[in-house]
Amino acid sequence: MTGESFVIGVDIGGTNIVVGAMPTDGSREIGVRTAPTGQAEGPARVMDRIAQMIDAVIDDLRTDGPASNAPISQHQRGESSDTNASTGSAKKPPEILGIGVGAPGPLNRKLGEIIETPHLDWKGFNIVRELSDRTNLRVTLDNDANCAVLAEWWKGAARGASNVIGLTLGTGIGGGIMIDGRLYRGLSDGAGELGHITVRAEGRRCACGKLGCLEAYASASSVVERWREGGGQFPDRSASGIAAGVPTVCSARDVFALASANDKRAVAIVDETAEMLAVGLGSLINIFNPEVVVIGGGMSLAADQLIPPLKERIKRHTFSCLLKVCRITPASLPLSAGMVGAIGSFRLQTSGSI
Amino acid sequence: MTGESFVIGVDIGGTNIVVGAMPTDGSREIGVRTAPTGQAEGPARVMDRIAQMIDAVIDDLRTDGPASNAPISQHQRGESSDTNASTGSAKKPPEILGIGVGAPGPLNRKLGEIIETPHLDWKGFNIVRELSDRTNLRVTLDNDANCAVLAEWWKGAARGASNVIGLTLGTGIGGGIMIDGRLYRGLSDGAGELGHITVRAEGRRCACGKLGCLEAYASASSVVERWREGGGQFPDRSASGIAAGVPTVCSARDVFALASANDKRAVAIVDETAEMLAVGLGSLINIFNPEVVVIGGGMSLAADQLIPPLKERIKRHTFSCLLKVCRITPASLPLSAGMVGAIGSFRLQTSGSI
Repeated sequence: MTGESFVIGVDIGGTNIVVGAMPTDGSREIGVRTAPTGQAEGPARVMDRIAQMIDAVIDDLRTDGPASNAPISQHQRGESSDTNASTGSAKKPPEILGIGVGAPGPLNRKLGEIIETPHLDWKGFNIVRELSDRTNLRVTLDNDANCAVLAEWWKGAARGASNVIGLTLGTGIGGGIMIDGRLYRGLSDGAGELGHITVRAEGRRCACGKLGCLEAYASASSVVERWREGGGQFPDRSASGIAAGVPTVCSARDVFALASANDKRAVAIVDETAEMLAVGLGSLINIFNPEVVVIGGGMSLAADQLIPPLKERIKRHTFSCLLKVCRITPASLPLSAGMVGAIGSFRLQTSGSI
Repeated sequence: MTGESFVIGVDIGGTNIVVGAMPTDGSREIGVRTAPTGQAEGPARVMDRIAQMIDAVIDDLRTDGPASNAPISQHQRGESSDTNASTGSAKKPPEILGIGVGAPGPLNRKLGEIIETPHLDWKGFNIVRELSDRTNLRVTLDNDANCAVLAEWWKGAARGASNVIGLTLGTGIGGGIMIDGRLYRGLSDGAGELGHITVRAEGRRCACGKLGCLEAYASASSVVERWREGGGQFPDRSASGIAAGVPTVCSARDVFALASANDKRAVAIVDETAEMLAVGLGSLINIFNPEVVVIGGGMSLAADQLIPPLKERIKRHTFSCLLKVCRITPASLPLSAGMVGAIGSFRLQTSGSI
C-alpha cells in the first residue's frame, strides 16, 4: 500500500456515532463502525469513546488491503483494493492525514466549536481541540448535513452533478447546497437551513421556535408528534418502548409501517408528510433549478413510501420546466454519508480539493 | 473620449421600456429615456420603437462628455465625465459594443428568445435576432430580475457584496441570486424564481397556477386583487381609471396611500403584505445566509411603509445569527436597475467580466 494515505471520518449524530476511514482517493470505506452517542454522559465521555473507535479504525487500517495476511476487518464494508500490493506490510503504520468530523450545527468551523445544537446539549464545546488532544491528529469540523450532501456528490446518488440540494430527514431536517461542485456556505457559514423554510405561514410550531417550518411537517419527530397528537400509540417493545427512549426515527418508522398496513390515521400523516415535503422541495427547485435533489437521513429508509407520492405531488408546486430537468432521488449512502462527507470535508479544508 | 466605448441597455417591462447607455466602466448613465411598452401592438412594433429609442441614445452618445459643446441631452441623468476630454469630437461616431436586453422570463438566453411570459404575450419571440437586424449591433438577452440584482451589486445598494438576494416587487415578483459576485443561474438557466416559493400551503392562487406563492401575497397585483376582493374602490382618475388599464403598480400605490391615511382595510393589506414578505425573505435568509437582500421593483417605492414592518416581522421567521449579518435594503436604482443590469449582463456574456 505504498504511498496510500488515509483520512478518518467521524459522524456525530443525536442517536449514533459512525467512524470509519477512506484512502484519500475515496475508493473504499475501511473499518466502519457505529456506536450509540450516549450524549447524556457529556461531551468528554463521548470524545473518549470516539477516540477508542478511532484507535480501532487505525488497527483496521494496519491490516487493510491485500498486502496484509490478516483477515479483513468484519467492520469493513468497502471493496478491497487488489492493486499496488508490492511493498506494504501489515506492521507498517498507515499514514493518517487526520480526522474529519461532522456534527449538527450551528457550529464555528474555524474555531472548531459546536455553538449550540438542540440534539446535543454541548454548547460552546470545542470538539476539534478535544479530539485533537486525544489523537494527536489534525481535526476538521463541518456541519453534518453539509457532509451528507458532499458525500452524495462525491460518492453517492449525485455524483459529479453541477448543483445539488441535499435534505437529511432525521430527528430534524438538515440541508446542504452544492453549487458548481462546491459546498455553498453563505456569508457566515450558516447557509443551508433547508428544514427551516416556511411551508405554511402560521402553521405548526417547529423545534426552532418558528411556525410552519418544513421540519415541523417532514421530520421524523414531527411524524411522531402528529401520531401522538392524534391519540396514536406505538407498538409495545416491552422494556424498550417509547417511554424508555426509543429514538424518534424508530418511531416514525412505526408510523410508516402502520401506513403500509392501511391504518387510516397513519396514512393521513404519511400523506401530509409527502405533501409538505413536495411544497418545500418545490420551492427549493424553483429557487435553485438544481440538477439533483438527494433525500437522505433516517426517514429516507422509507423512501418507497415517501418518494413516489412526493414526485406526484411536487408537480403542483414546481415550474414544470425546472422539474423535468431535476432528478429527485433517495440517498445512496443513507448510513455512511455523514462519515464519508466528513472525510471529504477534511480533504477540502486541508488541501482544497477532493 | 478617446478609447471609451459604450454599451446600450434595454429593459423591457410589462408597462414601460427603459433605454440608456453606459461606458464599459459603468461610470455613468447616458441618454436614459423611457416609453410605454404598448405590448398589445405586438412585438414587431415594440421592436421598432426600441430601435428608435436606441437611435436617440446613440445621438446622445455623440454629444456626450465635455469634449462636445453640444448641450447634454435632457434625458441624461448620469454624472458627466470631466476627464480625458482631450481628443474627442462631437462628430466622431461613438464606439458601441452592443446592446444588452433585459426581459421577463422564462427565456432562452442562448437562442435569444422569450419562451413565454405572462406580462408580455410574445411566446417564442426571438428578441435578439429582431433587435440585431434593426440595429446591426450585437445583442444579448437576460432575465430582467437577474439584471436588476446584477445592477444593484455592480452600481447600487449591494455594491461588491459576496452574496446577494434580489427581489423585484412589481406586477409579479422577480428574483435574482448572486453568489461570489456571479449570477447564479441553475442547471438550465431557470434559477431564481423567488416569487414562487410557497409561503402558505393551500393559500391564495398565484398567477403561475400554484397555491400560496410569495407573489400571491407580496406583488403589486396581489395588493390590488385583495383590495378589490374586500370591496375596495380605486380613486377616480377620470378617463384613465383602473378600468382603462392603469398599471397595477400605480394602483397598489393607491392602496399604500390609503394605508398611510389609516384606512383600516388598506392597513390590513399592507400588514399582510409585509408579513408574507417577512415569511418568504426569512426562508431565503435561512437558505442563503446572504450578505444583502435588495428589494426593488415598483412596490419598493413604498419602502418607507414596507421595509420597517418587514424588518420587525422577519425576526420571527429567521435564525437570529443569520439575520444579524444580513442587510435588508431598498434598491438604490429602482428605476434604472433593469437597464444598468442589462448592460452589465452584456459585458458578462461577451467579455466574461464587468
